[in-house]
Amino acid sequence: MTLNHNLLSTLRQQNPLVHNITNIVVANYVANGLLALGGSPIMSSAIEEMDELAAICSAVAINIGTLTAEQVKAMLAAGKAANQHGTPVLLDPVGVGATTFRRETVQQLLAEVQFGAIRGNAGEMAALAEVDWQAKGVDAGSGSGDVREIAQLVAQRYQTVAVVSGEVDVISDGQQTVEVRGGTPLFPMITGSGCLHGAVCAAFMAMLPDNLLSACVTACAVYGAAGEIVATDTMSSGSFTTALLNGLSIVQPDDVARMADIRQVG
Amino acid sequence: MTLNHNLLSTLRQQNPLVHNITNIVVANYVANGLLALGGSPIMSSAIEEMDELAAICSAVAINIGTLTAEQVKAMLAAGKAANQHGTPVLLDPVGVGATTFRRETVQQLLAEVQFGAIRGNAGEMAALAEVDWQAKGVDAGSGSGDVREIAQLVAQRYQTVAVVSGEVDVISDGQQTVEVRGGTPLFPMITGSGCLHGAVCAAFMAMLPDNLLSACVTACAVYGAAGEIVATDTMSSGSFTTALLNGLSIVQPDDVARMADIRQVG
Amino acid sequence: MTLNHNLLSTLRQQNPLVHNITNIVVANYVANGLLALGGSPIMSSAIEEMDELAAICSAVAINIGTLTAEQVKAMLAAGKAANQHGTPVLLDPVGVGATTFRRETVQQLLAEVQFGAIRGNAGEMAALAEVDWQAKGVDAGSGSGDVREIAQLVAQRYQTVAVVSGEVDVISDGQQTVEVRGGTPLFPMITGSGCLHGAVCAAFMAMLPDNLLSACVTACAVYGAAGEIVATDTMSSGSFTTALLNGLSIVQPDDVARMADIRQVG
Repeated sequence: MTLNHNLLSTLRQQNPLVHNITNIVVANYVANGLLALGGSPIMSSAIEEMDELAAICSAVAINIGTLTAEQVKAMLAAGKAANQHGTPVLLDPVGVGATTFRRETVQQLLAEVQFGAIRGNAGEMAALAEVDWQAKGVDAGSGSGDVREIAQLVAQRYQTVAVVSGEVDVISDGQQTVEVRGGTPLFPMITGSGCLHGAVCAAFMAMLPDNLLSACVTACAVYGAAGEIVATDTMSSGSFTTALLNGLSIVQPDDVARMADIRQVG
Repeated sequence: MTLNHNLLSTLRQQNPLVHNITNIVVANYVANGLLALGGSPIMSSAIEEMDELAAICSAVAINIGTLTAEQVKAMLAAGKAANQHGTPVLLDPVGVGATTFRRETVQQLLAEVQFGAIRGNAGEMAALAEVDWQAKGVDAGSGSGDVREIAQLVAQRYQTVAVVSGEVDVISDGQQTVEVRGGTPLFPMITGSGCLHGAVCAAFMAMLPDNLLSACVTACAVYGAAGEIVATDTMSSGSFTTALLNGLSIVQPDDVARMADIRQVG
Repeated sequence: MTLNHNLLSTLRQQNPLVHNITNIVVANYVANGLLALGGSPIMSSAIEEMDELAAICSAVAINIGTLTAEQVKAMLAAGKAANQHGTPVLLDPVGVGATTFRRETVQQLLAEVQFGAIRGNAGEMAALAEVDWQAKGVDAGSGSGDVREIAQLVAQRYQTVAVVSGEVDVISDGQQTVEVRGGTPLFPMITGSGCLHGAVCAAFMAMLPDNLLSACVTACAVYGAAGEIVATDTMSSGSFTTALLNGLSIVQPDDVARMADIRQVG
């Protein structure tokens, strides 16, 4: 598994349209992040237009951060329509372990939609893998589980690419498992950094629908480098919120190659 | 058509209350932008309070960016109530060409509400004018149509002031057509820069309800200058998101007079 | 009433989970602000998960900024569940004087939920105290009422801690009344600075549920100092939006002790 150097440049040339069904907390930040990267975001949760958006979009990202019953219907419709069009779909199961509503919604989504990738923090992915973990609300929390094993379990159980975000990102398709090191400790200090990570994965999935593992590994490497290139030792969360958008817009393939430490571990 | 120099100062003295029915992506940015300019934003999509808000507001901006069926009812109620009070209403038909739901909603709004102005990018306004254009999701896209003609067609068909945002803004009331040059290429790189442009038009419409063409021309000149005054050659989108709010708060009538290039072209 | 110096450090060690039912305008800013302070925000308005969130959260903040009928049901459910768990609940009655829908919702919330604190600007709190005041939409407006009296009236009528935000914050539990001076004139220039103030109060209420007056006084002192420490004379609203998040993350107990002027006035 090596870095796909060309993918970032291709993405910026083609500006893939990425449909996001997302939460009220990060909608603005995800849209700005995708624009900065070179994508073309469209945000909608209206069931009336899920079919048509699936027909014109190159990827769909479904995020359950501020889930409502109405939104669940739209997510199911969007996911199924994307599956019919062969458009890759990513699931971001925000806080899935926190409540029954989130857990049951994710189970229904996983039963009715084929996801090309699932991105979450260790706590969320452990909940999907049914591995013991102490999550805290929507935060990762801590657990004794092996993150590589969690990634493999999620990938195998749901026939998907599992992306476990963290200090080290672990990505697995169930057969190969890859770790991506890089980034900055500032990521978890801002809201939506995980959600935007998911959307960035979706944008790269649009560019490489036939190799979603490579797409997600590249996305992790680019996203980490975009943060690392702008972070400083004395930076606080407010400044990083702004700086990360700058980083996504200026990061170059060379930066990614230099900064990302990518290792196949299984 | 000359620039109305006093309008910006008057706006800052009177702080007009502008009611925004808007989308989850830009609600924060539009509110901050209106506050920075000197307006007083109120954001609500609750049908229960549309009548009362129409009675106290000086302008209404209706934006379909993340439309829901519930929101359509509120938009119709707000628009009709504003019409009864003689309060100017602006329509921002975000992504109108992208889906049937957006197209039909906009047709219903245009049939039941008299809009003082409609602001959109070239792709959205071409869709309203039924001119051939290749839009891309909510982005402007490109087309062979003549933007001046599109502005005139929209203005005449809907008895409104048409504001086509772009590198050159084209504003028409169907009889006179004006181009405003200025701004910065950073505008389309941030989400909500179009939506905020619409809200700024609404704020100026509140100040000059008897001459909405002049109000919108002034709004375009002020908005462009606010961006131009803070933009630098090396600025990326994250920094511009912050800087544009600063620009709206510090831009002075003299800056607008110096920077805006306003030409009557029809 | 003296400043509780340890509370800020304790909060940063314990990262209390604060559940916010809030509006689409400030959801991102409040989440980022709580994270910067050291809290752990969760944002949800889904009635399906109100009971479970009440069981795991240390405080709840209910904000009516962009109220919908669906949200009212969730607010009532969350408030009652929190009351059953003994979890402190804060009410932020945004724009309560502006419309009947907001007024009636707040009356219902106050009748069915016991709030540990209510935070609003002078106009909103005057509306709750039924004191004559000229509010303007969601802005404070101006009135001839005595703010101390308003705080006392609200506290006594609703058996709560009243927090009236302004150039001088006035906090009362109906028996003791405290004024906190500090902060910066930039606060009212950005949207959500009041809503974030309420959420910061909720985070401190989580740390000191047995003395909510002291918790809210400390919250006001910390919040003011966080703004003061980063504000400069030439700063505009865009930069302050970013800087306030930095301030919340870097402010130290010593800064608060030095900057906050706390006086018991009744």
